[in-house]
Amino acid sequence: MGIINDDFLLKTEAAKKLYEFSKDMPIVDYHCHINPKEIAENRKFQNITQVWLGGDHYKWRLMRSNGVDENEITGDADDYTKFLRFAEMLPKAIGNPMYHWCHLELKRFFGYDGVLNGDTAKEVYELCNKKLQNDDMTVRALIEKSNVKMIGTTDDPIDDLKWHKVLKEDKTFKTAVYPTFRPDKAVNIDKPGFAEYIEKLAKVCNMKIYDADDVKVALSKRLDYFCENGCRATDHGLDYVVYEPANRFVVNNIFKKVMAGEKVTQLEADQYKTALMIDLGKKIAEKGIVMQLHYGAQRNTNSNMFEKLGADTGFDCVSVKNCSEALTGYLNVLCKDNLLPKTIIYSLNPNDNQMIDTVLGCFQGTEAKGKIQHGSAWWFSDTKSGMEEQLKSLANLSLLGNFVGMLTDSRSFLSYTRHEYFRRILCNVIGEWVENGEYPDDYKTLKEIIEGISYNNAEKYFGL
Amino acid sequence: MGIINDDFLLKTEAAKKLYEFSKDMPIVDYHCHINPKEIAENRKFQNITQVWLGGDHYKWRLMRSNGVDENEITGDADDYTKFLRFAEMLPKAIGNPMYHWCHLELKRFFGYDGVLNGDTAKEVYELCNKKLQNDDMTVRALIEKSNVKMIGTTDDPIDDLKWHKVLKEDKTFKTAVYPTFRPDKAVNIDKPGFAEYIEKLAKVCNMKIYDADDVKVALSKRLDYFCENGCRATDHGLDYVVYEPANRFVVNNIFKKVMAGEKVTQLEADQYKTALMIDLGKKIAEKGIVMQLHYGAQRNTNSNMFEKLGADTGFDCVSVKNCSEALTGYLNVLCKDNLLPKTIIYSLNPNDNQMIDTVLGCFQGTEAKGKIQHGSAWWFSDTKSGMEEQLKSLANLSLLGNFVGMLTDSRSFLSYTRHEYFRRILCNVIGEWVENGEYPDDYKTLKEIIEGISYNNAEKYFGL
Amino acid sequence: MGIINDDFLLKTEAAKKLYEFSKDMPIVDYHCHINPKEIAENRKFQNITQVWLGGDHYKWRLMRSNGVDENEITGDADDYTKFLRFAEMLPKAIGNPMYHWCHLELKRFFGYDGVLNGDTAKEVYELCNKKLQNDDMTVRALIEKSNVKMIGTTDDPIDDLKWHKVLKEDKTFKTAVYPTFRPDKAVNIDKPGFAEYIEKLAKVCNMKIYDADDVKVALSKRLDYFCENGCRATDHGLDYVVYEPANRFVVNNIFKKVMAGEKVTQLEADQYKTALMIDLGKKIAEKGIVMQLHYGAQRNTNSNMFEKLGADTGFDCVSVKNCSEALTGYLNVLCKDNLLPKTIIYSLNPNDNQMIDTVLGCFQGTEAKGKIQHGSAWWFSDTKSGMEEQLKSLANLSLLGNFVGMLTDSRSFLSYTRHEYFRRILCNVIGEWVENGEYPDDYKTLKEIIEGISYNNAEKYFGL
Repeated sequence: MGIINDDFLLKTEAAKKLYEFSKDMPIVDYHCHINPKEIAENRKFQNITQVWLGGDHYKWRLMRSNGVDENEITGDADDYTKFLRFAEMLPKAIGNPMYHWCHLELKRFFGYDGVLNGDTAKEVYELCNKKLQNDDMTVRALIEKSNVKMIGTTDDPIDDLKWHKVLKEDKTFKTAVYPTFRPDKAVNIDKPGFAEYIEKLAKVCNMKIYDADDVKVALSKRLDYFCENGCRATDHGLDYVVYEPANRFVVNNIFKKVMAGEKVTQLEADQYKTALMIDLGKKIAEKGIVMQLHYGAQRNTNSNMFEKLGADTGFDCVSVKNCSEALTGYLNVLCKDNLLPKTIIYSLNPNDNQMIDTVLGCFQGTEAKGKIQHGSAWWFSDTKSGMEEQLKSLANLSLLGNFVGMLTDSRSFLSYTRHEYFRRILCNVIGEWVENGEYPDDYKTLKEIIEGISYNNAEKYFGL
Repeated sequence: MGIINDDFLLKTEAAKKLYEFSKDMPIVDYHCHINPKEIAENRKFQNITQVWLGGDHYKWRLMRSNGVDENEITGDADDYTKFLRFAEMLPKAIGNPMYHWCHLELKRFFGYDGVLNGDTAKEVYELCNKKLQNDDMTVRALIEKSNVKMIGTTDDPIDDLKWHKVLKEDKTFKTAVYPTFRPDKAVNIDKPGFAEYIEKLAKVCNMKIYDADDVKVALSKRLDYFCENGCRATDHGLDYVVYEPANRFVVNNIFKKVMAGEKVTQLEADQYKTALMIDLGKKIAEKGIVMQLHYGAQRNTNSNMFEKLGADTGFDCVSVKNCSEALTGYLNVLCKDNLLPKTIIYSLNPNDNQMIDTVLGCFQGTEAKGKIQHGSAWWFSDTKSGMEEQLKSLANLSLLGNFVGMLTDSRSFLSYTRHEYFRRILCNVIGEWVENGEYPDDYKTLKEIIEGISYNNAEKYFGL
Repeated sequence: MGIINDDFLLKTEAAKKLYEFSKDMPIVDYHCHINPKEIAENRKFQNITQVWLGGDHYKWRLMRSNGVDENEITGDADDYTKFLRFAEMLPKAIGNPMYHWCHLELKRFFGYDGVLNGDTAKEVYELCNKKLQNDDMTVRALIEKSNVKMIGTTDDPIDDLKWHKVLKEDKTFKTAVYPTFRPDKAVNIDKPGFAEYIEKLAKVCNMKIYDADDVKVALSKRLDYFCENGCRATDHGLDYVVYEPANRFVVNNIFKKVMAGEKVTQLEADQYKTALMIDLGKKIAEKGIVMQLHYGAQRNTNSNMFEKLGADTGFDCVSVKNCSEALTGYLNVLCKDNLLPKTIIYSLNPNDNQMIDTVLGCFQGTEAKGKIQHGSAWWFSDTKSGMEEQLKSLANLSLLGNFVGMLTDSRSFLSYTRHEYFRRILCNVIGEWVENGEYPDDYKTLKEIIEGISYNNAEKYFGL
C-alpha cells in the first residue's frame, strides 16, 4: 500500500478540516516553464520516461547521486532502462520531496496505489504507458482535471507569442495561458551570446540598438506587446541582487564596449544590469503588473557537463551572497519615484527568509494587500520543510493571510499535484497552530485564510 | 472564546509544572525604550489607540502589509478608525507574535477574553478606553501589577537623568528605574548630525572637544555620571560589528576631518568607531557593568517614508553581513588587556545564532557565571520560533542554565506580558526535553534553572 | 534514575523498530584524533578526570561558561576538584549534547545509572576510578566492546606511522587502524612555523624543497607511503574554502618569498593554498581514496589563552564566510580533468547545509554511490538538532540512503557512544517519517537504509 491517502501530511483533526476548504479551490499556476505550443497542440506522451525523465533535472540529479551512468540518465539508453534506474534509486530518496511528488502523480493521474521501486518498475511502467494512450491524458485534459484557472508561462521578450494567441482564440479550452516577460538575456551583459541576442531584439522591434537607452526602448515595446497579450507578470533571474547605480553615459559606454567585443568588469556589468532593472521596474509599475525577482542560484558549475548537456541540466547550486543592501537599495530607488511595482521576491538560499520577510514590510503600499510578497519556497527549497520554513517565517514577520501562495515552476504537466502538496503542508502548519491553541478555532476566518492562500489572493493580486 | 488560558503554549504536563516555578518570579526588564518621565509623572492614557498605535512600528508594519493607507496608520485619521484598521488586519496575522501579544495584553490588563477582529473592534475599543480611566491603569500601576523589580531605560550620554533622580527619591514607587548608557550618536561619525551632537556633548561636559581622545574623555565623564545614577549597563547599536584598529593619530585626524565638514570613507568611519568602541569597552569593564552589543539592522531603507516620518517608524530590516571576524577581533582586543566587560551580544540575523553561541565560549571569565551572554531573541526574531531557536542554540553550544533571559526592548507599558510569553515558551521547550526523557524529571534542579532564567540570573548579573 | 534507557531518543514505535536494525552494526570511525600509540600500548587510565578532562575542550568550554577558574580546568588543581567542578556545572548544560554524551558513557562503560551533578560527583568519581583499573577498561578493550571495525586516525605527512605498523602486525587486535593524511602544515603558508615544517618534510622525503612544485612532489611521496600503510582518506582543515588559481611561476615565487622570511598577502597565501589543494585533489583521485574537506572554523580567537594553552584548547568559533563560489570552483577544476576524488564536505556553519547539499548533486560520478558526500554534523554542530538538520537537509536535496554516516572526530576512547547517539537520532528521524505516513512501513527497505547509513555505506565507500 502506498503512502498517498486522504490524510497524507495532515497530522491533526484541524488540518484535515482545513484541507476541506482548500482541496477544491482552482489553481493559479502563475510561474512555470511549460511550453504553450504543447498546450495548443494538445500533446500526448508516448511513455512515462518521456514525461518524467525527458527534461526533469531534479530527477537526473538524484540518479547521478546514485552512481548511475549519464548514458542511462540523459544518454542513449532505452526508455525502460532509464525508468528502471530511476525506480531503483527512489527508495533511497527517503525524506526527499521527489518521493512524495512521484507517488502523488502516480496516484492522481495513473491511479497507482503502490510503491515505486526496482521491483515494481516494470508494472508501473506498463500501467503508465497504457494510461498515457487515453484521451484523458492529453496535455489539455491534464490541465483541466487539475482545475487550473490560469497558467503563467515564461517567455523571452522576442517571442512572438503565437501559441498564446492561438490558445486565446480557442474557445474550447477554458484555462487562461498568459505569457510572462523574462528579459534576462537583455540584462545579462556578461553572459555569452549577449551581442547576438541584442541583434535579434533589435530586429523584432524593427529598430536600431546603439546604446543601453535603446535596449530600454526595445524592451518597453516588447513589454507593451506582452501586456496586449495577457501578460500579468515579469520574471527576472539574477545570480545575486545587483544595485550599482551609475549615470546614463557610463551605462551606455559599458553597453558599447560589450557590443564592440570588449570585456567588462564585474562592476560594469552590475552597473548595466542595475540601470536596466531600474528602468524595467518602473515600466512594470506603470503597467500595473507583477515583478518577480528570483536570485541566489549559481549556474552551470560543472564545466564538463555544461559542454556536454548545456544549461538547466542539473548542475546548479545555491549561491551564498549577502544581498540585503542591494535588495533594499533597488526597491527604494523605485519607491522614491512612486514606481515600485507589485513585487514577489524569491531567494534560493533559505537563510534569506528572515531578511526578505523584514524587507517586505519596508515597501508595502495601498495598490494591493501584500503588495510586496515573499515567493513560495523555490526550487531546492521546494520541499516539505522548505515550505514550512517559508510559511512560518512569513507568518512571523508579515501577514501570512495575504500570501499569494504556490506555483509549480515546473516543466511538466503532471506537476499540478505540487499544489496539492503545498496545500496539505499549509493546512497542516495552520492546523497545528489551531490544535495547539495558538489561533482560535474560528473556522469562518480560517476558511477565508485557507481559500485566500490557495486561490483568492493570487486571483486578486494578478488581476484575473 | 479567546486563546489565552492557563495552559497557553504549554504543551506537556512537564511544561505546565515548570511554568508554576516561573510565573510569579519578578521581572527584570533590563533593556527597554520607555520614557522615565512618564513613570515619574505616572501618565494615564486616554484610549487604546494611544497606547497601542501611538508609537509601535511593529503594528504599523502589519497594517501597511494589509494595504492600509498611511493616513489611517500614522496620519490624521481619527483614533477609532486607526484601531479598526488594526483590528481588521489582525486575523490575517495568523502565526505572528502580534496576534499573541495583543490577546495577552487584552486578557491580562483589560480582562478581555475574546478575539479581536473587525467585528469586535468597537466592543474592545470601548472596553479598553473605559478601563484606561481607572487608577489601576496608570503607568506605575501597570508596572507594579506586572511585578517589575527593575527597568533599564535607554538614554543618551547627554541626558541629565532628571527623571531617574526624581524616581529614585520617590519612596512611594518601589521599582528601580536605571538609566542605560547608549552613546551611539558619539560613535556614528558617518550619520547626519554628528558634529552638532559633539557640540552638545562638549557643552554638557563643560569641556572643549578637539579630537577623538576628547570624545573618549567626555564619554567617560558621562559614564561616571550615569553610574552614579544607578546605571547597570550600556547599549550599542551597530549596523554591523566593526573592528578596524588604527592608531590614535589616524583616528584623531578622521574626527577632525568630519568636524571640518569633510567626508570620510567607510574604512575611516569604521576606524573611528572601532577606536571609540575599544575605549568604551575598557571603561565599561572598569565600572563592572554590562555592555550590550546590538547589531545587524539596516535602518531607514525607504527614503520617502524616512523623509515623512523619520527614524524608528517601521522601515528597518535584517542586514546580512559576515561579522564573526570583527566580533572576535573586538572581544579579543579587550580581553588581551583584561578589560573585557560582561557582555551581551544580540544580532538581528537569526542565522548568527550558532556563530554567536560559539563565540561566547571563547571569552568567558570568572567575574560572572555566563560572563559573555547571547541576548534573548531580538526585535524581528522576538517570536515564538525565534525564541525557541535562540534557546536551543544557546543550550546546544553554551550553558542555558546561566542565561539572563528576557527583556522587552519595548516602548509600551503593556508589554510586560512578553515576559509571560517568553516564560511559557521557555518552560515548553524545557518541558518537552523532560517529557521526552532528554533531561531527568528532577524538579528541584529544574526549579533552580527556571527561576534562574526567569529572574535570579539577571538579578545577579546586573548586580541588583 | 538516569535518562539512558532502551528507548532513549526513540519517540515512536517505528523508531524503536528501526533502532533494532542499527544497534548491533559494527562501527567505522573513519575520522578521529585518537593516538595510535595508546592503542598499540593498550593504555590504561588512572582516573576519570584523565579520561574526561585531560584533553576535551568541549568540556573545558562549558566549565569556563560556568565561571570556573582556569586553574580548576586545565591548571594545577587536583583531579577530583576538576571533576567536581565539571559535575557541578553539568545540570546547567540542559539541552547540551554533553549532558547526553556523559550519561551515555557513564551507563555504557561504567554501568552508572544515575545523574551526575555536584551531589553525586564523589560517588561517580570513585565508581569510575575503580572500574578503570579493570582489564576490560584498557584502550583495546574499550574499542573491542564498542564493536569498532575500523579507526581512521589523523596524521601528519611526516609521521613515520610506526604505531600503525605495529598494530597491523599485531594479530591479537582485530580492529583496523588506518592513518589519515592531513597535510595542513604544508598548505597553511600563512601560519607560523611553515618554513620549519617544510624543512622537516624535506628531510623525511630525503630531498631538497626549492619551490611549491617540490612541495607537491614531497607530499605525493608521503601520500604513497600512507597508502602503502592502509590510508583510506585524507583530511584538510581550511579556515574557508580557497579557490584562487594562479600559474606555477606565481605560486613558486610566493613559496620562495615565504621561505625567505618575507610576508605574503592574503591573496598570495590563497593562491599557494589553491595550487597545493588542486595538486593534492588530483593525486587523491589517482589513489582512489577519499578526500575530506573541513572548513568554517576561526581558530585561536583569544590571544591570551592561546599564549597560555596553545591551539585546540577551546577558543575556536564558527567562521561565517560565503564559500559557494570557491567550493564549486575547486571541485570543478578537478572534475574538468576527471580527477575529482570521492569527497566528503564538512562546514562548521550549519547555515551552509543547503548550499553544500545542492553542490553534491553537481559533481557526482559513477565511482561510488554518493561519490560526493556531506559529512555528518561536525564539532559545534554535533548536537541532536545539528544532526537532525544535517540529515533532513541531506534527505531534502540528495540521497540520504547513500550517506556514509557518523564519525566521532574525538580524542577519547569512550566516545564511541556517539555512534549510538547518532543512530538513535537517525532512527528517530526516519521513524517519524514512517509513523507520519511520509514513507512506507516497508521494513525490508528500511532495514537496508538503516544498515547502510550505520555501517554498510561507509564500508563500501572506504573500500574496507
